[in-house]
Amino acid sequence: MNEGIYDINLPQNMANFEALSPVTFIERAASVHPNKLAVVHEGIRRNWKETYERCCQLADALIQHGINKGDTVSIMCPNLPEHFEAHFGVPMSGAVLNSINTRLDAATVAFILEHSEAKILITEKEMSPVVKEALMLMKDKPFVIDVEDPSYTEGELIGDITYDAFIAKGDSSFAWKNPSNEWDAITLNYTSGTTGNPKGVVYHHRGAYLNAVSNAMSWGMPNQARYLWTLPMFHCNGWCFPWTVAALAGVNVCLRHVRPERVMQLVKEEKVDHLCGAPIVLSMITALPDEDKAGVNHTVKVMTAGAPPPASVIQGMEAMGFAITHTYGLTETYGPCVVCEWNDEWDDHSDDEKAKLKSRQGVRAPMQEGLMIADPVDMKPLPKDGKSIGEIFLRGNIVMKGYLKNTKTTEEAFVGGWFHTGDLAVWHEDNYIEIKDRSKDIIISGGENISSIEIEDTLVSHPSIKDVAVVAKKDEKWGEVPCAFIGLNEGAVLTEEEIIDFCREKMARFKVPKKIVFVDLPRTSTGKVQKFILREWAEQ
Amino acid sequence: MNEGIYDINLPQNMANFEALSPVTFIERAASVHPNKLAVVHEGIRRNWKETYERCCQLADALIQHGINKGDTVSIMCPNLPEHFEAHFGVPMSGAVLNSINTRLDAATVAFILEHSEAKILITEKEMSPVVKEALMLMKDKPFVIDVEDPSYTEGELIGDITYDAFIAKGDSSFAWKNPSNEWDAITLNYTSGTTGNPKGVVYHHRGAYLNAVSNAMSWGMPNQARYLWTLPMFHCNGWCFPWTVAALAGVNVCLRHVRPERVMQLVKEEKVDHLCGAPIVLSMITALPDEDKAGVNHTVKVMTAGAPPPASVIQGMEAMGFAITHTYGLTETYGPCVVCEWNDEWDDHSDDEKAKLKSRQGVRAPMQEGLMIADPVDMKPLPKDGKSIGEIFLRGNIVMKGYLKNTKTTEEAFVGGWFHTGDLAVWHEDNYIEIKDRSKDIIISGGENISSIEIEDTLVSHPSIKDVAVVAKKDEKWGEVPCAFIGLNEGAVLTEEEIIDFCREKMARFKVPKKIVFVDLPRTSTGKVQKFILREWAEQ
Repeated sequence: MNEGIYDINLPQNMANFEALSPVTFIERAASVHPNKLAVVHEGIRRNWKETYERCCQLADALIQHGINKGDTVSIMCPNLPEHFEAHFGVPMSGAVLNSINTRLDAATVAFILEHSEAKILITEKEMSPVVKEALMLMKDKPFVIDVEDPSYTEGELIGDITYDAFIAKGDSSFAWKNPSNEWDAITLNYTSGTTGNPKGVVYHHRGAYLNAVSNAMSWGMPNQARYLWTLPMFHCNGWCFPWTVAALAGVNVCLRHVRPERVMQLVKEEKVDHLCGAPIVLSMITALPDEDKAGVNHTVKVMTAGAPPPASVIQGMEAMGFAITHTYGLTETYGPCVVCEWNDEWDDHSDDEKAKLKSRQGVRAPMQEGLMIADPVDMKPLPKDGKSIGEIFLRGNIVMKGYLKNTKTTEEAFVGGWFHTGDLAVWHEDNYIEIKDRSKDIIISGGENISSIEIEDTLVSHPSIKDVAVVAKKDEKWGEVPCAFIGLNEGAVLTEEEIIDFCREKMARFKVPKKIVFVDLPRTSTGKVQKFILREWAEQ
Repeated sequence: MNEGIYDINLPQNMANFEALSPVTFIERAASVHPNKLAVVHEGIRRNWKETYERCCQLADALIQHGINKGDTVSIMCPNLPEHFEAHFGVPMSGAVLNSINTRLDAATVAFILEHSEAKILITEKEMSPVVKEALMLMKDKPFVIDVEDPSYTEGELIGDITYDAFIAKGDSSFAWKNPSNEWDAITLNYTSGTTGNPKGVVYHHRGAYLNAVSNAMSWGMPNQARYLWTLPMFHCNGWCFPWTVAALAGVNVCLRHVRPERVMQLVKEEKVDHLCGAPIVLSMITALPDEDKAGVNHTVKVMTAGAPPPASVIQGMEAMGFAITHTYGLTETYGPCVVCEWNDEWDDHSDDEKAKLKSRQGVRAPMQEGLMIADPVDMKPLPKDGKSIGEIFLRGNIVMKGYLKNTKTTEEAFVGGWFHTGDLAVWHEDNYIEIKDRSKDIIISGGENISSIEIEDTLVSHPSIKDVAVVAKKDEKWGEVPCAFIGLNEGAVLTEEEIIDFCREKMARFKVPKKIVFVDLPRTSTGKVQKFILREWAEQ
């Protein structure tokens, strides 16, 4: 093709092109709203100027310490101000932030620190027992910095220096540089797989910028939103919300432990208007006594993901004036990239219908370009009939750069130009998707696909059942049959026979579990049920 | 630098990288909210599915007609649905949209059509007299398509085909392709300079995407916002709002003529919650009789630019429940790129103080990376003292690609890695900028810089003065002295001497105009005062 008139002498230059980076958001917040509250934690209240200056100090101190572009700086820390600062100060130094799940065991922490080649680890007193043990397992130990939270009196300092002493060496007016390439890595997040070693998911500046904006757009967040940190920052960088809050010059209300009384107290005292969390967080809030729930005179928007929120939880939250948005995403997609955007045509539906619509995962987020439900093998899109189960495929700017030092898995994940989620879903006529299962969790019985989630949903609607997980059990005749692991509510009595009868009333016979086990479900550190353990138990 | 672990085998691919383009927003709106209202115009109400399909048809029909990537398609049309559609259908075909100011004269229109090498012109009956004349001036005429608005009974069809007949040839499920390069041109907007030929400002997909998002972020716009088209779409592509409204699956309330009664009627009937316009539009609304202004029961957000809105207008609008945001931008910056973001620390100020704060241009918009007030020659930033006058410099992703076929001017505009606006301003201590003058409008008297805007602001505060413009007049002793051109309110009587006395009370003696001329101010088609004419008159 010939060069057209629009390509002649119209190149990128310093004036009209800048790498997209969410780090620019905090510089803007500090210059536009220097005196506005940025971070609240117990007795600490810092404005955007102070917070920005601490980030600059951190960046400068890291460079003085010898950190280079592309080095890894790990952090294992609750949702404290220092964890927020690391989301800016570390990339401002050119390094990559690796935020480690605070619930992991020492062996996994040691694996992550070694695999990521972390030069520095920022840790915190509550993490000391695990981190101490992890460091003992390592040959080349990183330099260790201790966050010292004065409001937390337990735990010991185990590092080489405290965070405040470390950043005190840095210049608060340090002239950090934006990356020249927006494809540069910004963070590294290890997935907590249910089996095997975790994989290191690499995010880049461009994607982090765009998902931060996508959050604000899809939620219609205003400037100066007041965000409560119920969602861990180690979880896909808190779904990119540290950068969203900076873009809006909002308020970060920090939270060490997700205790529902404290959540409600902060919602009222700090006028929190936005928070995220798994459905379990919502359940804990709705289970509070009425006096804790009363007294909220403003709307609180809640984004939830990880599992469809039960209807009772949605209704309970909305009765309190909380507005729930259900989203879906993976570590590989910077957190939420599919959102159950509300359609006001549904306003007149019954509460049950509304809850059902809300429990669907939804449509692509504003900044994600592609979403389809397709055959996992030939990748042909499936009909939008609400029935045909296929794999969820995603593509666009909020899909990860790839897995660190794992070329084969990266290539497999991107086969055919789409990211393969491994999640199974149907596509409704209105373009909203609904998850039916993880690929590996589908049960194939007599050639029929059975969604373990569908059986779980039915069982959990029984008033005596608290907790349930369904897996495949080998069967000579059918190939596989469903096996249900069930936790009962305190004091409830229910027999295997009663449960099977209950299922027979509600579902096709071939879907009814053939074996019932009463058990306390084994979970990962992030609360995911460890189905690989249940699969072993099912065969016993 | 060695290749770090984050650069090994983590390339861009089809799954994780997509060119940023605002065209993707309409595909999403149509798939997520197909039945939601997208466009309203008189009797026409189309939803997002219908609107998207018409854009696909337009794109396909353009390609069938022979339009290639990088060709120019011009449009000269009021704010009608077809003008909105062209913002998507034209780039979906790979072509570049050139939206022409509907108030231009035939010679300028002919110049633009020839300079842009337009292959097609979409026109509309109201434009026929000018377009007919322009086409007669041209050797190589473009193919002409007539928009036929059934609600407009005047004017003649002058083209080769009507818009509806043209797009009827296109496929409503046309599989358009996103550009492979986000730096590709998307639109071309000619600046209406006060002298000389207009310059063609080229926008790219990336910038258009980011400014569309910046609008939504800085204004905190919700999904399904209802936007009234008071701002011409030919004006920096309506400040990129066609794309913003699509990103939010909002409603475009179209408007052929900005008549204040009709504006208020639509605000009430269509529950408009967002609109943009020059201060003159706001003045027209506040001047309406009370019965027109009454009956708005929701907040209407108004973005204004072009000149600081007078305090009386701000107060009048806010009394009606309208919330005014003052912004600043240029054709070269996709419209607004500086915004007077409200700070709630100002809530307790007096109305006059608030209006004064609001009349400042403000701070950089969320997606613009750099703003400074610096010496126009050495480009060194000036102190933030509210006094030192320097040039406004901008840099970042919402600065144009450059001027079409005008390498020298493009290079001059970007000297030193910043875009030179030619506007003069001061920088207040709080980082907010305030415009003092255009570079060429500053008056240098006895070595002192005098802001013509400052004198104009003083004069317009006189109750008898309706309109004012101040320019430099040559003076043997002082070099230059201020000369004021004044329009009086109907029935008002005021002498030159009274005006000079009024000025002496309010400003330093060297700033007082030495000559007063009573006149009807000459303006360009966009309403800008033609100071180059006044400069000639000043010497007579």
